[in-house]
Amino acid sequence: MKYCSNCGAGVRLQIPAGDDRQRHVCNECDTIHYQNPHIIAGCLPIYEDRVLLCKRAIEPRHGYWTLPAGFMENGETTEEGALRESWEEARAVMTLDGLYTLFSLPEINQVYMFFKGTLDNLEFGPGPESLEVELFTEQQIPWDELAFPVVKKTLRHYFADRPNDHYPLRSEALYRPKPKV
Amino acid sequence: MKYCSNCGAGVRLQIPAGDDRQRHVCNECDTIHYQNPHIIAGCLPIYEDRVLLCKRAIEPRHGYWTLPAGFMENGETTEEGALRESWEEARAVMTLDGLYTLFSLPEINQVYMFFKGTLDNLEFGPGPESLEVELFTEQQIPWDELAFPVVKKTLRHYFADRPNDHYPLRSEALYRPKPKV
Repeated sequence: MKYCSNCGAGVRLQIPAGDDRQRHVCNECDTIHYQNPHIIAGCLPIYEDRVLLCKRAIEPRHGYWTLPAGFMENGETTEEGALRESWEEARAVMTLDGLYTLFSLPEINQVYMFFKGTLDNLEFGPGPESLEVELFTEQQIPWDELAFPVVKKTLRHYFADRPNDHYPLRSEALYRPKPKV
Repeated sequence: MKYCSNCGAGVRLQIPAGDDRQRHVCNECDTIHYQNPHIIAGCLPIYEDRVLLCKRAIEPRHGYWTLPAGFMENGETTEEGALRESWEEARAVMTLDGLYTLFSLPEINQVYMFFKGTLDNLEFGPGPESLEVELFTEQQIPWDELAFPVVKKTLRHYFADRPNDHYPLRSEALYRPKPKV
């Protein structure tokens, strides 16, 4: 951020009165511009013993498999965001049964929320951001071709929890791997 | 938003290519400025049969009682945000045992997350945003002086779940009351 979105003047980095961290503050109108983490809402879509995955048609991780997910929009609920992304990326319609995984990625200011859901039918297919959409059994999951750690962890939790048919919320913080010394 | 935070030029409202909703787009550098919901992270601090509440020293809802909560910051996890707010508002230190309530407020683009926790000790007191900090039994809760519906709902859930000592995640969308016709 270099300019004030309210008046167009330059901004400075400053700790505002009563605050304890640097914010972008306008040099003219003194508006404080806060920056906060983003929510990425997605689904874990289940059909009988299979899970739906999308092969990404966009960067990052073009060609890798992911669960449908994307930035939550203003004006929607977390569940609505998760369902919207599943429609946009996989043309899939499902019934959600609750938040299943919650990941904080503090290094990139993101919070992932995956809701477990059951596909209402087998009508699905790639939206504009996907190359393919397919159902996979546990044995068929392309573990080495998954797009993101949050996807791998959500799938690992699911297949570990499935024998007990009990899916408690899984919450975790994820950090980038440290470079090897 | 009236000006581009990247180059200072004016912005227009436009549906970008491949998108389906209006965004602020810069007239000069074409940067798309997305606006997304904010996370408010907080705690439900428990000590034996009592719950900690803070009397607000700031608007909105000055003088009303709330659970410690506030905007999640970049660079922290949801749990870290909840614990930081509990320290800032109540000088309270606790051990969290998981996300308990999740509220979407789509009309104001907020997502509330309350983590249930147990106070580590009885050393607490008002931070700069609180007038008082106190522990309340269920019978003592000032139900008519609670600051926000998310606080009331979290407390109601807690006292309803406590007899079973089982606290499943409670997720809900909240809307403003419709004006009476």
